Amino acid sequence: MLTIGWGEALFFPPPLSKEGIKVGALRRFAIYLDENRIGEAPLFLPSPLREPYVSLTFELLAEDTQTEARLGRLTLPHGVVETPVFMPVGTQASVKGLLPEQVEAAGASIILGNTYHLALRPGEDRVAQLGGLHRFMNWERPILTDSGGYQVFSLEDLRQLDDDGVRFRSHIDGRWLELTPETAVAIQEKLGADIIMCFDECPPSQAPKEQVLAAVERTTRWARRCRDALTSEDQSLFGIVQGGIDEELRQQSAEQLVELDFPGYAIGGLSVGEPSEVMLEVAAKTARHLPRTKPRYLMGVGRPLELLEAVAGGVDMFDCVMPTRNGRNATAFTTQGRLKLRNACYAEDERPLDPEWPAPYVGHFSRAYIRHLFMAGEMLGPIIVSLHNIAFYCRWMREIRERLRDGRFNEYRASALARFGDSL
Amino acid sequence: MLTIGWGEALFFPPPLSKEGIKVGALRRFAIYLDENRIGEAPLFLPSPLREPYVSLTFELLAEDTQTEARLGRLTLPHGVVETPVFMPVGTQASVKGLLPEQVEAAGASIILGNTYHLALRPGEDRVAQLGGLHRFMNWERPILTDSGGYQVFSLEDLRQLDDDGVRFRSHIDGRWLELTPETAVAIQEKLGADIIMCFDECPPSQAPKEQVLAAVERTTRWARRCRDALTSEDQSLFGIVQGGIDEELRQQSAEQLVELDFPGYAIGGLSVGEPSEVMLEVAAKTARHLPRTKPRYLMGVGRPLELLEAVAGGVDMFDCVMPTRNGRNATAFTTQGRLKLRNACYAEDERPLDPEWPAPYVGHFSRAYIRHLFMAGEMLGPIIVSLHNIAFYCRWMREIRERLRDGRFNEYRASALARFGDSL
Repeated sequence: MLTIGWGEALFFPPPLSKEGIKVGALRRFAIYLDENRIGEAPLFLPSPLREPYVSLTFELLAEDTQTEARLGRLTLPHGVVETPVFMPVGTQASVKGLLPEQVEAAGASIILGNTYHLALRPGEDRVAQLGGLHRFMNWERPILTDSGGYQVFSLEDLRQLDDDGVRFRSHIDGRWLELTPETAVAIQEKLGADIIMCFDECPPSQAPKEQVLAAVERTTRWARRCRDALTSEDQSLFGIVQGGIDEELRQQSAEQLVELDFPGYAIGGLSVGEPSEVMLEVAAKTARHLPRTKPRYLMGVGRPLELLEAVAGGVDMFDCVMPTRNGRNATAFTTQGRLKLRNACYAEDERPLDPEWPAPYVGHFSRAYIRHLFMAGEMLGPIIVSLHNIAFYCRWMREIRERLRDGRFNEYRASALARFGDSL
Repeated sequence: MLTIGWGEALFFPPPLSKEGIKVGALRRFAIYLDENRIGEAPLFLPSPLREPYVSLTFELLAEDTQTEARLGRLTLPHGVVETPVFMPVGTQASVKGLLPEQVEAAGASIILGNTYHLALRPGEDRVAQLGGLHRFMNWERPILTDSGGYQVFSLEDLRQLDDDGVRFRSHIDGRWLELTPETAVAIQEKLGADIIMCFDECPPSQAPKEQVLAAVERTTRWARRCRDALTSEDQSLFGIVQGGIDEELRQQSAEQLVELDFPGYAIGGLSVGEPSEVMLEVAAKTARHLPRTKPRYLMGVGRPLELLEAVAGGVDMFDCVMPTRNGRNATAFTTQGRLKLRNACYAEDERPLDPEWPAPYVGHFSRAYIRHLFMAGEMLGPIIVSLHNIAFYCRWMREIRERLRDGRFNEYRASALARFGDSL
């Protein structure tokens, strides 16, 4: 088989939009010559064609002169992600309450899936058999899956933890399951996300230094095993820095992982109860020990202003359940601060949620109507505010990227802090 | 002020679709001359302009030769409705789980709102203040509101019923409320639906004949009071035929209401526990006593094949919670019958819900994925199947209309009965 060219074309999935307009997805493919037959293959399937292709490229487009903030572009098998970026959380192969096209319309370019939940239900083999996570949930852009470490270590029924891995009981059917660096990678390979994460040990937030140190060292040993276990060439494995809130341990963890040469690094084990200022300081200090040319991902963070500050500290990627979880609980993030929509003050408020940043699909509903939906227990309330919040977070990151492009990031940061204070 | 012409134009509400394409709504308006100034006014607002306008026209486009089925066109202030038509139920100003544009994309041309629920929460005055039900919920096509009679008569806390009306306790806050023919009309005028319903007495399904007779007579007296109470010229008030399953009482009720000359008639008090065949027979026999040239609406019915049979009996309009309620409970209506999506047989089923009739927005999701959503308790499951079911019902009615247009309705009816039997 001989590659003779590359192509790009718009492919149209079956459903038409209501105006009868087809929405196409840009797909790259290789054109090949095989036994004198011309064929085509998706560009990113494992095949001998793939030599000219790397599963992740990260370009630094701009670096702020006054802070550590960076503007970047991450190219992944399923598409391009502009950084700094917020990744909505789709724990169980669904960003709660939203259709994939709504998540995309809200501005999301990459989402997160949870290995722990998906391995338990429907199971990674089932997902693989159904074409992988992208096809299963009909999300055609990039996906990142976590390793399951964070969930497993927060389980009460964690019965055994040693250097090999962990044994735990499923919260769904009580089965005993095992997660090791090797199985965590194998599961994530079956799910098929663009970016996958090392299996790490996330110690409790109040753990003594010796325990945190032990977790750092184990996380490094496990990271090496994850790297060695990786067989997929279409997925990029990120290392996860641990070390609690101890600067020295964070540095040690970062340096050990950098030696293993991952294509990207996450800062894990934060936002687990420590004050926001501490979290931001540790994240920024950790980022300094990570390679300038590789993407940095702060896991599980946070409020919009925390994202802004972490960007100033040199972070490129974020995920958080806050926009969807708060959305289901009737709290909207807006350019006027957080709105708690069950409050009586919105009962006659004809204004949209956020006149300044209207969200697609839902930007025209009045606060009075949305409040009514929550008071009446209608599903549409959580749907509207979840979509709005995802759109707000994505727009928030887009503003940050635009200011980085203009070279006015720090100015914008100061004005945002002054404008929003604790309200976002 | 002098009307000098009529116009039609596409108006574009604020949100753009994700492709940046604006979706316009066709609005008719009057062009008028006022103190030498040319202006325009929405066609259907109460104003001296409205002389040439009637709030409802019903055109019979075709009548089946072998059955009583009719193809019609209902023109209402907010748009045109092709009949026979299915109206999705939006009890509390929301078709559960769906955005208005999804309901529209599913093929719905008119929806139903519940006066009882809306009067209790958020209250008709609040809805009126917020611009009426259409604007409140962002549904720009026609709406029909029921009178609240059906809900009130099924309440346990119905404390007083006499010729004046009923007193009952709100299921939300325990307040004592009153519903009379006059208040039912006044509330519906504030909600602002295109079609509003008379306040009727709906006797229990097992009521003795004397009680049903008394309800018929009271329903007639109340219908006259409703007609006399109507002040809005933009809303069309339908009478509701009662009479239980007694043919003679149905005829009596129909004749008394026809004398009051309503622009349309509903058949109420059915589908309350009687066998399907009895319901269909009573509906068909009642329809015969209703004017040929006016729309006939069978309330609260039913399964797709019941709709087909009722059309054959001469019914033009339907509403039912079945598509959304069954959708939330993981039951899909499809051209392959009803699918119960929690069943294990769908765990690996890659086929879409209905390959023959794919629904907009959700036609590409696999059964395996939808089953996973229900098993995992994800909101997206109910959303997908509700939207699919609404689209199925609307498509079902569209097929019926097309066969009526072709003159092949009865042939189609026989083949549908043979094909689907009890499965739909």
